[in-house]
Amino acid sequence: MATNPEQRLKDLGLSLPEPMQTANLPFELIRVHGDHVYLSGHVPLAADGGLAKPLGKVGGALSLEQGQQAARLVALGLLATIRQAVGSLDRVAGWLKLFGMVNAAPGFNNLPAVINGASELILDVFGETIGQHTRSAVGMAELPFDVPVEIEAELLLNK
Amino acid sequence: MATNPEQRLKDLGLSLPEPMQTANLPFELIRVHGDHVYLSGHVPLAADGGLAKPLGKVGGALSLEQGQQAARLVALGLLATIRQAVGSLDRVAGWLKLFGMVNAAPGFNNLPAVINGASELILDVFGETIGQHTRSAVGMAELPFDVPVEIEAELLLNK
Amino acid sequence: MATNPEQRLKDLGLSLPEPMQTANLPFELIRVHGDHVYLSGHVPLAADGGLAKPLGKVGGALSLEQGQQAARLVALGLLATIRQAVGSLDRVAGWLKLFGMVNAAPGFNNLPAVINGASELILDVFGETIGQHTRSAVGMAELPFDVPVEIEAELLLNK
Repeated sequence: MATNPEQRLKDLGLSLPEPMQTANLPFELIRVHGDHVYLSGHVPLAADGGLAKPLGKVGGALSLEQGQQAARLVALGLLATIRQAVGSLDRVAGWLKLFGMVNAAPGFNNLPAVINGASELILDVFGETIGQHTRSAVGMAELPFDVPVEIEAELLLNK
Repeated sequence: MATNPEQRLKDLGLSLPEPMQTANLPFELIRVHGDHVYLSGHVPLAADGGLAKPLGKVGGALSLEQGQQAARLVALGLLATIRQAVGSLDRVAGWLKLFGMVNAAPGFNNLPAVINGASELILDVFGETIGQHTRSAVGMAELPFDVPVEIEAELLLNK
Repeated sequence: MATNPEQRLKDLGLSLPEPMQTANLPFELIRVHGDHVYLSGHVPLAADGGLAKPLGKVGGALSLEQGQQAARLVALGLLATIRQAVGSLDRVAGWLKLFGMVNAAPGFNNLPAVINGASELILDVFGETIGQHTRSAVGMAELPFDVPVEIEAELLLNK
């Protein structure tokens, strides 16, 4: 298997969505300080960069499997933002952390299984050494626009 | 327009509250490590450093506009803590991230609009270059003392 | 009183649980980058590294005091992970932040008092200079497996 993330992404048959647009918003999706990268909370994106459907709470309107798929889409959106900002996923030296937030229906607490959809994609694309990360997987009362999953991340670039 | 934040603050007619008191609490509001600043979750403060009113959930007891005003007060409190710890807002080199938490009434999910109250104030005071930040804007089940908004932040100082 | 954390821990009569097992999970509990340590969200552990009981929401199935005890167990689990990864608690140079998440029953908002169970333990073991930290103490809609408290942390090692 290829060892560079851009090639792995191709080998896995994955493509990235258009990055989310924030032109008129009072924040940005990514900030690079030295080798340290901060990523805003990202939501699931469709291929065109709009919100992916379905919306709603995991364990309610959405099944666990739909929540996992949403988490996977969030991860692909994080990669789209990273590639746009730094040119190539191959510049990533290591993932530090994910803060994984699930729009949880009352009583639904299998939150780690939902966020695994993102963690496993990152490990698939970046491999164990670069892709390993700390994380939390927790249940929020509400998320913006009723998205099922939102994930914030920090990572490192090669110098 | 002035380019230094302390002058901008004056030009905008803004004044900062007394910093929150944590003398008997088992944590601190700010920690500076090298050029990196960590800020505890801050709540909306009145001018005397006490909790601002009204309390309650945004989208329930509080309107969106009241939530935005609360977020703006949180941002002013963050600035008060920063100034007290490092002497002047002019020492800030860049904002890295805001983690914006809204005490959300069930079904209220326009969380980004609430946290914009803080983001816009920071951009007004620090300008685009220094004030730009990543962020999340999410809905919590409960916040301390039923405050409507709590925000955590990380930023950088000039060396 | 002893000034090194390992000796203080003994003097306080405290012992650490077995670290949580993550062998088959797609994330890790700790990541060390230079002198900076990132810790995943930790949950309350029994002595054998399994989930501590009782489970449930603080202010509902669990009292405030049970929530505080859960937060204390989370802190001991964080210490277990740190010791296993870096060899000794005496290598810790400073705590930067705790993100304290309470599984809050509707209407329960004395969240700071719950997380004090962790903050006070850290101050007891590490002392004021090293143990002081920023933090947030907030109420989540759901936490994994219905644990009452989950805490994420960042800290620094001696170089």
